[in-house]
Amino acid sequence: MSYDLVIAGGTVATASDTFSCDIGVRDGTIVALGHDLGPAKETIDATGHLVLPGGIDSHVHIAQPSGEGIVMADDFASGTLSAAFGGNTTVMPFCMQEKGTSLRQTVKDYHKLAEGRCYTDVSFHLVISEPSEQVLGQDLPALIEDGYTSFKVFMTYDGLALNDREMLEVMSVARETGALVMVHAENYDAIRFLTDRLERGGHIAPKFHGTSRPIPVEREATHRAISLAELVDVPVMIVHVSNREAMEEIARARSRGLKVYGETCPQYLVLTEKDMDGLNMEGAKYVCSPPPRDTASQQACWEGLSNGIFNVFSSDHCPFRYDDPAGKLIPKGRTSFRWVPNGIPGVETRLPILFSEGVGKGRITLNQFVALSSTNHAKTYGLTKKGSIAIGMDADMAIWDPKREVTISQSLLHHGSDYTPYEGIAVTGWPVTTILRGQVLVRDGQLVGKPGQGGHVARERSALAAPAGQLPTSFAPAGRYR
Amino acid sequence: MSYDLVIAGGTVATASDTFSCDIGVRDGTIVALGHDLGPAKETIDATGHLVLPGGIDSHVHIAQPSGEGIVMADDFASGTLSAAFGGNTTVMPFCMQEKGTSLRQTVKDYHKLAEGRCYTDVSFHLVISEPSEQVLGQDLPALIEDGYTSFKVFMTYDGLALNDREMLEVMSVARETGALVMVHAENYDAIRFLTDRLERGGHIAPKFHGTSRPIPVEREATHRAISLAELVDVPVMIVHVSNREAMEEIARARSRGLKVYGETCPQYLVLTEKDMDGLNMEGAKYVCSPPPRDTASQQACWEGLSNGIFNVFSSDHCPFRYDDPAGKLIPKGRTSFRWVPNGIPGVETRLPILFSEGVGKGRITLNQFVALSSTNHAKTYGLTKKGSIAIGMDADMAIWDPKREVTISQSLLHHGSDYTPYEGIAVTGWPVTTILRGQVLVRDGQLVGKPGQGGHVARERSALAAPAGQLPTSFAPAGRYR
Amino acid sequence: MSYDLVIAGGTVATASDTFSCDIGVRDGTIVALGHDLGPAKETIDATGHLVLPGGIDSHVHIAQPSGEGIVMADDFASGTLSAAFGGNTTVMPFCMQEKGTSLRQTVKDYHKLAEGRCYTDVSFHLVISEPSEQVLGQDLPALIEDGYTSFKVFMTYDGLALNDREMLEVMSVARETGALVMVHAENYDAIRFLTDRLERGGHIAPKFHGTSRPIPVEREATHRAISLAELVDVPVMIVHVSNREAMEEIARARSRGLKVYGETCPQYLVLTEKDMDGLNMEGAKYVCSPPPRDTASQQACWEGLSNGIFNVFSSDHCPFRYDDPAGKLIPKGRTSFRWVPNGIPGVETRLPILFSEGVGKGRITLNQFVALSSTNHAKTYGLTKKGSIAIGMDADMAIWDPKREVTISQSLLHHGSDYTPYEGIAVTGWPVTTILRGQVLVRDGQLVGKPGQGGHVARERSALAAPAGQLPTSFAPAGRYR
Amino acid sequence: MSYDLVIAGGTVATASDTFSCDIGVRDGTIVALGHDLGPAKETIDATGHLVLPGGIDSHVHIAQPSGEGIVMADDFASGTLSAAFGGNTTVMPFCMQEKGTSLRQTVKDYHKLAEGRCYTDVSFHLVISEPSEQVLGQDLPALIEDGYTSFKVFMTYDGLALNDREMLEVMSVARETGALVMVHAENYDAIRFLTDRLERGGHIAPKFHGTSRPIPVEREATHRAISLAELVDVPVMIVHVSNREAMEEIARARSRGLKVYGETCPQYLVLTEKDMDGLNMEGAKYVCSPPPRDTASQQACWEGLSNGIFNVFSSDHCPFRYDDPAGKLIPKGRTSFRWVPNGIPGVETRLPILFSEGVGKGRITLNQFVALSSTNHAKTYGLTKKGSIAIGMDADMAIWDPKREVTISQSLLHHGSDYTPYEGIAVTGWPVTTILRGQVLVRDGQLVGKPGQGGHVARERSALAAPAGQLPTSFAPAGRYR
Repeated sequence: MSYDLVIAGGTVATASDTFSCDIGVRDGTIVALGHDLGPAKETIDATGHLVLPGGIDSHVHIAQPSGEGIVMADDFASGTLSAAFGGNTTVMPFCMQEKGTSLRQTVKDYHKLAEGRCYTDVSFHLVISEPSEQVLGQDLPALIEDGYTSFKVFMTYDGLALNDREMLEVMSVARETGALVMVHAENYDAIRFLTDRLERGGHIAPKFHGTSRPIPVEREATHRAISLAELVDVPVMIVHVSNREAMEEIARARSRGLKVYGETCPQYLVLTEKDMDGLNMEGAKYVCSPPPRDTASQQACWEGLSNGIFNVFSSDHCPFRYDDPAGKLIPKGRTSFRWVPNGIPGVETRLPILFSEGVGKGRITLNQFVALSSTNHAKTYGLTKKGSIAIGMDADMAIWDPKREVTISQSLLHHGSDYTPYEGIAVTGWPVTTILRGQVLVRDGQLVGKPGQGGHVARERSALAAPAGQLPTSFAPAGRYR
Repeated sequence: MSYDLVIAGGTVATASDTFSCDIGVRDGTIVALGHDLGPAKETIDATGHLVLPGGIDSHVHIAQPSGEGIVMADDFASGTLSAAFGGNTTVMPFCMQEKGTSLRQTVKDYHKLAEGRCYTDVSFHLVISEPSEQVLGQDLPALIEDGYTSFKVFMTYDGLALNDREMLEVMSVARETGALVMVHAENYDAIRFLTDRLERGGHIAPKFHGTSRPIPVEREATHRAISLAELVDVPVMIVHVSNREAMEEIARARSRGLKVYGETCPQYLVLTEKDMDGLNMEGAKYVCSPPPRDTASQQACWEGLSNGIFNVFSSDHCPFRYDDPAGKLIPKGRTSFRWVPNGIPGVETRLPILFSEGVGKGRITLNQFVALSSTNHAKTYGLTKKGSIAIGMDADMAIWDPKREVTISQSLLHHGSDYTPYEGIAVTGWPVTTILRGQVLVRDGQLVGKPGQGGHVARERSALAAPAGQLPTSFAPAGRYR
Repeated sequence: MSYDLVIAGGTVATASDTFSCDIGVRDGTIVALGHDLGPAKETIDATGHLVLPGGIDSHVHIAQPSGEGIVMADDFASGTLSAAFGGNTTVMPFCMQEKGTSLRQTVKDYHKLAEGRCYTDVSFHLVISEPSEQVLGQDLPALIEDGYTSFKVFMTYDGLALNDREMLEVMSVARETGALVMVHAENYDAIRFLTDRLERGGHIAPKFHGTSRPIPVEREATHRAISLAELVDVPVMIVHVSNREAMEEIARARSRGLKVYGETCPQYLVLTEKDMDGLNMEGAKYVCSPPPRDTASQQACWEGLSNGIFNVFSSDHCPFRYDDPAGKLIPKGRTSFRWVPNGIPGVETRLPILFSEGVGKGRITLNQFVALSSTNHAKTYGLTKKGSIAIGMDADMAIWDPKREVTISQSLLHHGSDYTPYEGIAVTGWPVTTILRGQVLVRDGQLVGKPGQGGHVARERSALAAPAGQLPTSFAPAGRYR
Repeated sequence: MSYDLVIAGGTVATASDTFSCDIGVRDGTIVALGHDLGPAKETIDATGHLVLPGGIDSHVHIAQPSGEGIVMADDFASGTLSAAFGGNTTVMPFCMQEKGTSLRQTVKDYHKLAEGRCYTDVSFHLVISEPSEQVLGQDLPALIEDGYTSFKVFMTYDGLALNDREMLEVMSVARETGALVMVHAENYDAIRFLTDRLERGGHIAPKFHGTSRPIPVEREATHRAISLAELVDVPVMIVHVSNREAMEEIARARSRGLKVYGETCPQYLVLTEKDMDGLNMEGAKYVCSPPPRDTASQQACWEGLSNGIFNVFSSDHCPFRYDDPAGKLIPKGRTSFRWVPNGIPGVETRLPILFSEGVGKGRITLNQFVALSSTNHAKTYGLTKKGSIAIGMDADMAIWDPKREVTISQSLLHHGSDYTPYEGIAVTGWPVTTILRGQVLVRDGQLVGKPGQGGHVARERSALAAPAGQLPTSFAPAGRYR
């Protein structure tokens, strides 16, 4: 009995346990945990290092069109390469339906863009922007059946925002099929109103992006999304939560017995609104939505990572080039923050920031790190073969040097953006080797993988979603739609 | 020195005090409080009776078109007559803008309907259904200046519902002019969604009106309305609150330092959802929005009246004929609850119900009764000469027999509806004499007033509104729009 | 028909109304409100001035022994004189039972101290420090029957603190007799623990008084007091609330349907913990309990005054001499903040501070000022003839010059302390004339009254207390003691 | 390379993962996970069964004296035997200090009782009833250092209840040593007060045990315990939480950023207060503290298990004989519920109830079951070698037949009590084989283990406790003791 690969001598951590052992891999799968496992075609010595489940980043944007002729800075090659260098083995981008395009065609198009180009595995969420009868009645249920078991809806953005009726309709499909709904929760009308007012007052610099989306804008939409989900009795994931007030909406809903999940991101832990107040247009580098808030909000988000308000920690990687004809500094962006593309790169830096600031500073445990960065993503989105180091799982792993000191810098990174919003942040701990289904992608910081090594993964239903079921047509006397 | 009228020997109550004295009236105004006031043209003996400020009902619907060719059951004559018999001296109906009609024309039209027909005084709120540039920039500010210092917006109903952007725009006008915004808070999209589902499931009886508007529908809109008001930094009145969850939104907002006011109505104290579940179409008699809930909600509303969550107690009088070609039983109403007109009569029964169930059963004090039924309405809406028994105030009074036992019955009432939803409720305490600006309208239960005795009252700014001011164009660093 | 006194031409305000009229007084009672009232023995011209109900300060300490041989700086003469100059006509001091002294004797002793010395009226609360069988079964019920219808209990202070069992026993008496319980809510054990630790660390300066009683110490005791009251189903007044967390406990309890009332004081509006951090022992001038907090807490208290969390605004006048052998600077006080007497003077400055900072700056209305400073005290504690300007009420009034600018200074004040913690605060608006039962005490800032002009007032049951009733002996199945 | 034991063919679950593999054990430790592991001295075929970490019950009472001459129904032999048959491999009883006995002697005494008699492993918590200087300054820190890294304090019970000062003192020791404090949170004074009142009213039946400890009694103490922990900045575990109000205190504290943990028990999931209302003295069988509540509370507790409010699920096994001279039916117990010993047996039924009602009915996942019943106990209390199935862990396992249908009955159980409060409850899923450190204790429902096979386990510091540190002696300006 022999192995294709043995990772020897490392300290292994799962969401539950930390232990020392060798890991035996055969046919891309973890088949043995123990000591002195026996002969292997290849052995990697992980002595003194941590061996963790490969990171899963369940919220990344790759190769999406972004309006105004702007091209996202990462295609599937660069995006997944950057992910791999950041210790990830799976990323979850979006097949974003554009109005006028069928959902099925959208999925085909994104597959075409990804085909043969990925370093890590990818698994697509859907984005529903046009919930037509065709989408609701045919395409969406069929795609869910095919393994696209989660989809995102937007409560803001031109061309994407669904109204409440549309939200209810798509949530009903989730209820009936057992899919999981993700919501970008910001009040579209309020943002447009405030943006108009700000522009009218001459307040056009990037920093006014933050003032155009104050906390009540996010809190309102969070409560509304939860209320709509309550009406159709379906769980819901609130993505990229930035502040305590929105977190309290999640906590309140759970106290009412609802299944509401939460996600936060690095920008809400280490950036603040002040970062958008740079000289000239420097602030544009930090423009994302919801915007970074203040240090009290950072503290709140850390507490939420520690105490379970947040199930997952994602990057919301949404890369643009800052200084590029079609990047963040587009001529229109200079005329108003309104036109600065919303989004920042982060797929490569997500895990080192969480590790160093979280585990390193005692805010979360190593096992929580694994849960928040990998295991919970797998459970939340139905990646049943990924997210842990256990017998039978895909051999997706990242080997970390927990003592390596790195100052984050654009020059170190592999994404398509021409900057990182985390420039200059010093971290301790870095993923040095990344292994996808038993194949090494990055070894000791050097690329050894090839595009196409990663593929698409169809998913099971989320462990957190309700079982597929009929939407109730009779109602409880108390007026609760159950 | 003599008086036109002296009311002698009664026990007088204001929002603050209860005392025994005579009341001297001259030129329609209260000019003296004391004993042995001297000669009067007329003296009313109020011995053994309560003399209270005339009721002000700040939420009544009169002579509004209601779609589908349905005519409201009260014109200004019958509506104000019914009000007078119910102990009221002022009612506040709505000039409801219909889409396509200018706001100024709307006001003219309603004045024409009211002119010369009113028994009590009336003072119009506006309803903004089409916040065009003309309305926002010209008509609304001018009308506010003319004394229409409050307006209502609807978050639901076909042809009336404003979207969030429109809400923000009209709230901004309130911010800039010092007007007070009233909000009907229910989520329009959710109601339509649930209604469609219910109809599709064959659930068309009147009782499904309640299930189509469960509590989260109201709680959601309440939180949203408050959040929008928070963004433009303007106070807001949430009308006809029906349950504890919506009340908690008001309480939470106050804890954040916001100025949010609340109103509840008799239907939320003595009716429940079960009343809509009558034989045949009997349930239609109780259809109003938000719907009556359950006994726990009734208890919550009583607590809110006692502990200050609610500033005002109104009828939301919205009368239809039940059995009439163009009434609640319209052929379409029989095909689905969706077509049953929303609204019930109540202007005449509001005060006896609150007095008997509230004061009589020790849930509120007599002074709270005066505040909730009259004084606070005057303060909330800028009726500076009304709402109390004090020197210089309009001599608007109701003389109550606090021991009179009455079983509420349609046969006793004066409204235009052909039923009362409060049929059979036994109360102790009834207004026997109503006096408007020193003129007796109803004496010992007999009409002595004439149409046209009441007139329209222009109002000052609300004491609860923010002072007129510039909407801020720069913002606090914390992201709060202040 | 003639009057003993007419106050003419002023603007009168009650908790409900503001109006212009003359006020006719006969036999110490308000008998007429109107114009051209007719002949009077004396007429005071109040043109351009406000005529308000005389202030009622329901929380003052006079002539109490304070341990360590310390004498309170005010006896009943100076205390009520100071009150009169501050626009008050009634103060409510405490008959504080000392351990080993019977409650009846305590009451006699305090009456003896007050007899013939008071300028304003006084009405005693009781303080129960030793709830023996004699007290619970005999003395307390009898004294309540005699018009001492409220009593205070302390959860902290050596020799005063009751344990929870004792709290429940005295609350049961309130339940059975219809008395109102006032609670000083701070956790005794926590304060002693923190004080010991601080002293052990050498932290003995006055400012550590604040650190020895952090907000959780007050919040904990507030929740506990409310919970105990909940168990015996009795209303409770939480006195001198200093911060938002304690306020939230009150709001939460109300949301559960409980009757919980709140009081705040000037020190929580205009002082902060930093005031206790003066050079040398200057900080001792600000030592009171709970301690002043920070500006966010001030803001919270203002919101509570405006939105109804607080029913009454009192001074908690508790005067000591700063630089006096037996004052705040006692030798022991220099050795540790533990020995600095807790309490500051404020009976004379309470109303000008609330008027200027509250009414003057638009935080509360004039009618709210009257309610918070006078009317609500009368209602809360059963002073049925006081607290308003209405026919039949005691002619207790203060005439205010609303434009008078005064900088608060010890040299202006009449209390027995040798300092004021409000030194240097500039206010606009000052009470210039004070009238007690038709007799002028202070006229245009000059004393005209005499000691003994004020007397003791027995009280009715509080309008806010529960009616006297049997404590339930059977219980609801849900486990609620009702 | 060979194994002492291989468990083959089962489905293994940890708190994180579920997978199929064989488990290789050597020297009592799990050394290999994989397939075809090679030769073993013994192989257990687990095909079709679940292999789970052995249950850890971190809250059991064994061989404690219980006053009035009452003997607890389990000694260490029967208690751990019952535990083993219930799928447990470690239980955590208490060394309960009796007043007048030194803490060190207490520990010795309990060890003597346990020595050589245990079937499962045991690890003692301490109970501090007399926090003398000797205890606080010497014994407790030394015992913590020796591996007794958690201790429990009682806020109620004669002879056990600590006052708040004592709570703060022992919590300070926890702060300084990194130990974890467990709190029994009920208000002692309130219970005694209510008990006295009930007895006086003749309400002496067992069911009045529930009415003597209504929810506010528990909520109050919960908030107080949290507040005290907040003051000394130390984490705290609230044990046996029974209802939503207490849960909300935990949630609120977490929202303030505090580290507060929670435990619930089977009695709060499947019993209610009504169970105490049996014929004759049958109700005594269900008397425990806090008492079981109602079905809404059961629902709340289930939600708390699912959404993370509760970290651990324990039995609070506290066994008495019902019909025994020194049992629950003691003569004194018949005279009043006050004398009925508080506590019910449950160590053997805890896991089947949670499995069947929780996993079987879809309320929690299998991985949550493992976490709540085993892994989290190990992490919470520093049992670093226990609580999971991973390389290097103690080979503590339970093999479950997930389809086995059992009706719980006293005749099936192995505890010392003469009844089970869960009599007649039907469950699906039962632990058939229990393995302690590689030694089989129970095989296919038959005892094969021997007393003395289990031993005492010294523990590391809790992963949830704060690191040992100096109690702060300077404080934040805001008044927070940090």
